[in-house]
Amino acid sequence: MIPVRMMRKMVWERSMNKLSRGLSSSQIRKPRSPSLVSLDLIDEWSSTFTRSHSHPIQKSTANNDTARIIDGRSAAEEIKSSIAIEVSRMKESIGKVPGLAVILVGQRRDSLAYVRNKIMACHEVGFRFSIAELPESCTEDAVCDALSNYNKDASIHGILVQLPLPQSLEQHFDEGKILNVLSLEKDVDGFHPLNIGNLAIQGREPLFIPCTAKGCIELLLSSDVEIVGKRAVVIGRSNIVGLPTFLLLQCGQCLQRHHATVSIVHAYSENPEIITREADILVAAAGVPNLVRGSWLKPGAVVLDVGINPIEDPESEHGYRLIGDVCFEEAVRIASAVTPVPGGVGPMTVAMLLLNTLEAAKRALCFT
Amino acid sequence: MIPVRMMRKMVWERSMNKLSRGLSSSQIRKPRSPSLVSLDLIDEWSSTFTRSHSHPIQKSTANNDTARIIDGRSAAEEIKSSIAIEVSRMKESIGKVPGLAVILVGQRRDSLAYVRNKIMACHEVGFRFSIAELPESCTEDAVCDALSNYNKDASIHGILVQLPLPQSLEQHFDEGKILNVLSLEKDVDGFHPLNIGNLAIQGREPLFIPCTAKGCIELLLSSDVEIVGKRAVVIGRSNIVGLPTFLLLQCGQCLQRHHATVSIVHAYSENPEIITREADILVAAAGVPNLVRGSWLKPGAVVLDVGINPIEDPESEHGYRLIGDVCFEEAVRIASAVTPVPGGVGPMTVAMLLLNTLEAAKRALCFT
Repeated sequence: MIPVRMMRKMVWERSMNKLSRGLSSSQIRKPRSPSLVSLDLIDEWSSTFTRSHSHPIQKSTANNDTARIIDGRSAAEEIKSSIAIEVSRMKESIGKVPGLAVILVGQRRDSLAYVRNKIMACHEVGFRFSIAELPESCTEDAVCDALSNYNKDASIHGILVQLPLPQSLEQHFDEGKILNVLSLEKDVDGFHPLNIGNLAIQGREPLFIPCTAKGCIELLLSSDVEIVGKRAVVIGRSNIVGLPTFLLLQCGQCLQRHHATVSIVHAYSENPEIITREADILVAAAGVPNLVRGSWLKPGAVVLDVGINPIEDPESEHGYRLIGDVCFEEAVRIASAVTPVPGGVGPMTVAMLLLNTLEAAKRALCFT
Repeated sequence: MIPVRMMRKMVWERSMNKLSRGLSSSQIRKPRSPSLVSLDLIDEWSSTFTRSHSHPIQKSTANNDTARIIDGRSAAEEIKSSIAIEVSRMKESIGKVPGLAVILVGQRRDSLAYVRNKIMACHEVGFRFSIAELPESCTEDAVCDALSNYNKDASIHGILVQLPLPQSLEQHFDEGKILNVLSLEKDVDGFHPLNIGNLAIQGREPLFIPCTAKGCIELLLSSDVEIVGKRAVVIGRSNIVGLPTFLLLQCGQCLQRHHATVSIVHAYSENPEIITREADILVAAAGVPNLVRGSWLKPGAVVLDVGINPIEDPESEHGYRLIGDVCFEEAVRIASAVTPVPGGVGPMTVAMLLLNTLEAAKRALCFT
């Protein structure tokens, strides 16, 4: 069992076996019935959206073929292979490897699953990994102390606080205050307001681009999807997905200028179905299972499904399965390309986290 | 003549007469033929947009009445009156008044005109005003030094760098580097990336909301325009107008949550006319005279015209007149409400600058 009443630091030494010292085997298994909240979703979507939109499915204008499946898993594998090569080069050249640290407060089962994925990914590419586990009952200061320690740790180049932080009547964590402590140079999630400001302002460059948004753009580019001038709709306006994805699609960064015409649809939007149907490119990040039906899609649209929603399924091995925000079975008959859940945007998010950490390490170690 | 080879500081002592010491009478007159660039417009709009969109004007669905004219000048006067009362109260209570400083590089005639408006507005409400004038040939360091001096000056609560800074083959000013020097607490334009980041992130609050965006929202609210759930289109994605207006319309700040469904149309957008015609609320900030024709408007839309474009007019007193981005004569026949140019968003921008400076002073002086 995790000693929940004290903070503990665990260093990943490139062996998954050592993980069991930090997380018991039951904890590192996939969660049986995790909470439905997997993104930082502030919006509450009307339940009418999720109920009555089972209109007849439109046929694709092009032909009766089903959509191309955008394979995020294989794209992520390719990126991880490149990262692993870079890590080897770094190790041989200067004897150091990138280091990623995660601060985990409490034991949300979905958070544990996400952390496990990150540990595995770090292992695959040869990163050092460290975790600070704090009990749900810890103070805000304890989280800030853990962050400060990692800020000072020269072997750690990227730090993230696993969100969401536990919130209850008794315990409230001020995410803003906590993120302010995080060193900008190690903010590999890219959530610091100065980083978001630099992402938003044309002519400025953020140190890091938030991982899911970056992963979505990479999937579009690697799938040769034309973005310039096209209409894009982002469903959901969360700080970690919707907002940065909007910013990237609209302007892009550095040498990648995307110039889409972007609209954000959210829980207060009137006629979300009609607006979504205008999209050449759709990014669904509402956190609502099967929110987007076939009737919401423009024939031939490219659909990126960011949602990872566990739903009960007695027939599944763990009693649940993961589905996206998009009704996949209907989408494949309307869209020209679509990401599956799981195996779409999710693996790319982790790959982008590794890429950001590699960049941070290169910058810190002046390694080119 | 201005001694252009040296920096000079001029304090406004509540008398327009003293202005002549700093700016000669010819300089403080309206510019005869100012540059067409009045916003920080990065986008270059295709000339086809401005040529061939003279489709027949649609009639308003409601009736044949012309649109209500949203009187920005009178709304701004009301706000300035309230500010003047607050300044009097502050002066009586603690013997101090808010102070605004402007750094002006070069002698662009439109910039001089904007600065003159700010000086007049400060005079009206009883603010202290100071200006640092620098020659176009000055160094970036000289601008930063002027900023640093104002940062330290306790009688100055708000500072702004009059944009755009001169750019030529010989001389390049890095706006980002310069704005980084500006004290966040005095950034009354709200352009610092940390401020923009805090504006963008839900759950955070910026110290200052950029003035034009704030003025647009104030005009909508004072005109009782319903925003929640409505479709809004912002034309133009400049850092100083388009981006913050998008952010405010979509989320709002503090107790004002607006929740519009917002799209940004820009120079790369395909079919800008069709997208714009979907808007219940349109904010035009492209800096292109008469870009938006009647055929671009949804009948009954509310139209805020941010453009201030001088066009040659031999019959006008100064040889030019100001027009907006929206063809006013056509808009009044389609829209339900529209701002004029001049006298619409412009005066509100100045009023919001005063409001931000008052807030900054109250914060700095702990005056409630």
